Amino acid sequence: MSERLVVIGGDAAGMSAASQARRLKGPDELEIVAFERGHFTSFSACGIPYWVGGDVAHRDDLIARTPEEHRARDIDLRMRTEVTRIDVPGQRVLARDLESGAEAWTGYDKLVIATGARPVRPRMPGIDAPGVHGVQTLDDGQALLDTLTATEGRRAVVVGAGYIGVEMAEALCQRGYRVTVVNRGAEPMATLDPDMGRLVHDAMSGFGMEMVNHAEVTEILTHDDGQVRAVATKDAEYPADVVVLGMGVQPETTLAREAGLPLGEYGGLLTDLAMRVRGYENIWAGGDCVEVLDLVSGRERYIALGTHANKHGQVIGSGAGGGYATFPGVVGTAVSKVCDLEIARTGLREKDARAAGLRYVTATIESTHSAGYYPGAAVMTVKMLAEYRTGRLLGVQIVGREGAAKRVDVAAVALTAGMTVEQVVSLDLGYAPPFSPVWDPVLVAARKAARAVRTG
Amino acid sequence: MSERLVVIGGDAAGMSAASQARRLKGPDELEIVAFERGHFTSFSACGIPYWVGGDVAHRDDLIARTPEEHRARDIDLRMRTEVTRIDVPGQRVLARDLESGAEAWTGYDKLVIATGARPVRPRMPGIDAPGVHGVQTLDDGQALLDTLTATEGRRAVVVGAGYIGVEMAEALCQRGYRVTVVNRGAEPMATLDPDMGRLVHDAMSGFGMEMVNHAEVTEILTHDDGQVRAVATKDAEYPADVVVLGMGVQPETTLAREAGLPLGEYGGLLTDLAMRVRGYENIWAGGDCVEVLDLVSGRERYIALGTHANKHGQVIGSGAGGGYATFPGVVGTAVSKVCDLEIARTGLREKDARAAGLRYVTATIESTHSAGYYPGAAVMTVKMLAEYRTGRLLGVQIVGREGAAKRVDVAAVALTAGMTVEQVVSLDLGYAPPFSPVWDPVLVAARKAARAVRTG
Repeated sequence: MSERLVVIGGDAAGMSAASQARRLKGPDELEIVAFERGHFTSFSACGIPYWVGGDVAHRDDLIARTPEEHRARDIDLRMRTEVTRIDVPGQRVLARDLESGAEAWTGYDKLVIATGARPVRPRMPGIDAPGVHGVQTLDDGQALLDTLTATEGRRAVVVGAGYIGVEMAEALCQRGYRVTVVNRGAEPMATLDPDMGRLVHDAMSGFGMEMVNHAEVTEILTHDDGQVRAVATKDAEYPADVVVLGMGVQPETTLAREAGLPLGEYGGLLTDLAMRVRGYENIWAGGDCVEVLDLVSGRERYIALGTHANKHGQVIGSGAGGGYATFPGVVGTAVSKVCDLEIARTGLREKDARAAGLRYVTATIESTHSAGYYPGAAVMTVKMLAEYRTGRLLGVQIVGREGAAKRVDVAAVALTAGMTVEQVVSLDLGYAPPFSPVWDPVLVAARKAARAVRTG
Repeated sequence: MSERLVVIGGDAAGMSAASQARRLKGPDELEIVAFERGHFTSFSACGIPYWVGGDVAHRDDLIARTPEEHRARDIDLRMRTEVTRIDVPGQRVLARDLESGAEAWTGYDKLVIATGARPVRPRMPGIDAPGVHGVQTLDDGQALLDTLTATEGRRAVVVGAGYIGVEMAEALCQRGYRVTVVNRGAEPMATLDPDMGRLVHDAMSGFGMEMVNHAEVTEILTHDDGQVRAVATKDAEYPADVVVLGMGVQPETTLAREAGLPLGEYGGLLTDLAMRVRGYENIWAGGDCVEVLDLVSGRERYIALGTHANKHGQVIGSGAGGGYATFPGVVGTAVSKVCDLEIARTGLREKDARAAGLRYVTATIESTHSAGYYPGAAVMTVKMLAEYRTGRLLGVQIVGREGAAKRVDVAAVALTAGMTVEQVVSLDLGYAPPFSPVWDPVLVAARKAARAVRTG
């Protein structure tokens, strides 16, 4: 007797789940039906800035696996088909063919919800004007590229200075635009403490970008023909031939909410360690529509990131395919690049630590990515947080150039292992002059943090 | 009543110890006398290949701290003064001024032995001929540079293919030499398993170096004027205008042996976790003259590496200065570069695992340092060992290009924490297209290793 697995959402989490379930169970044992409302499957949204910037030549380079490739693995993939209702007691989903408008119910034994995220779009005049673009989907990317091709002017405004905002700022610079980044926070990269965000601000200014902080956008102004002409805040107007919105994303959980499934503080689905929706034996959820356990603070967080989505899919597919895997949680690692600046963070910022009830010390150091005497030794700043008294590592932020960002992985593993900064000092990290000073910058920060712990 | 700390050896471990002790105790409380037989203090021997290759312009760039700088911190540093005896019961050392030949005893309350390493130099004809060079000290480096300047021919033979050998091969290539690397092992980089060493072999051949394996050097042949002309093995002769010996190093523990201090299997001093010589309350030892605890195999190993020496010095200085610190051990991390090839290892090789009584599985994968679609995505090979049944991570080896080597740090931390490969799969490592595929190469290897553990 064959079971049916239904997957809602054909991107990283959904199709990883489908593929992994298929690896474990053949089509005679498990039928797999996947619904995707868009035109593409399994694409790298994180790659869109590099396509727009010209580093990646073709849209299709960002597609990891096409619908045809999924179908060749016996996955019944229904493109341009949107699930509009989940009937949990009835174990079925209602789906509409977006071309024909036809609707039909499909029953499931097991269900995977991988509905992803939707971009934050505050209601304001002009937000839908021609020339205003999000960069969430490949269609969004193509529309932006079409605007860039058609536009004469060379002034771009990026709204938002998170990782999408700064990456899009770089992309637009590469396309020859004069870029203004309008950011409502105190500094760009609110995922960093403001003192570290300031370093990003200064570097981006140094790249010739105009950086505006503390600026809430109130309106997008248009020409008489409706085309965008400027971004307005309470205090100022920033002329724009093109506007890119990088204001973050929210979990796309309308379906789940309507079905009565449990949502968390950030509106994401809540799951157990096997990525099953809490309280449901046969419903899994993963990717940008779920909240994840932060192992450092012990609380749920919302982090939309392709690498988590892929892992979730793997775990879900193992469970749905009769195997076993878990996703124990995250420590909040993220890396970004803007021009030759590298930005990284993991664990808790100061305000996260305070919100978690933790008292902490901080240490900030400057060092270089290679031995100081090695040609091209690039400066980086490392900030470390450690818990007061216990000395437990709480977080690390790094801003630098070559060789800065991925050093945060050392801290990510140490956080996962619950190490103290004193233990971090003793870590046996790779040393040779082209790769590191004799004391790796992370260890230098740990030494200083350990001293701060001792002196309280 | 002031105590006296005597330090034997003025390089990384010794002078780090002296400096750290001085930070904790002023000259009124602690007199510090340091003996160094050479011309330099606190220099980076690891930097010599980059000086010879021309990346580092000046010898003095490799000196972290000069004798004058140490003396300015109230360290009584006696240069060109060799300690020839340690009288443990009498708590004194006998030292000879190498210029005047004068000898004198100096009493100590606390003693630090940081006598370093000496290069392996098998007795064979021609080994001391002009044109044959080691690269252990700054004087060695200068002598080699003098030979390179004076020599017309452009054929160089490097004997040994460990990290010094491969780095010197690169340096000589950069100087315009046709380089032959003569190696007695099965493949270069015996710190890797042979299958990974093969990748180094192929890459170095690709750089135009002649790579000779399984070749024991029997003699160094000279011209009538005594100048080197070739390196001979049992089977062949390799013409050479200059020969560089990179045959590894041994602990320099003659003094310690004569004083009856405990030595290990590799001839290095044995210490406790505070780096005190085992059984001695007031004698510390660190750097290239000690053996270190390998946390993975539970045995002592000998690893001569500047980063360990610096840490040892820090720990010793803390203890000798009345503070507290320990060196818990190593996992055997090492990174090297030859041209644009990056080589890294940590933990146990297959033969180490067997020698430690461990049964294991292996997994080898190929991936890229950035997203596959990102321009310049560089291929790397990652090999992982995991313990049979428990799945505990045992070791990782990486050979690749940009962004390959320092990824080994993730494994180094995971080894220290005793993680299983299944736990490694879930690590929250930094992801963005310029820095990593959505599954970091280390995680891809861990996935494959975890499957190998499950299937036994």
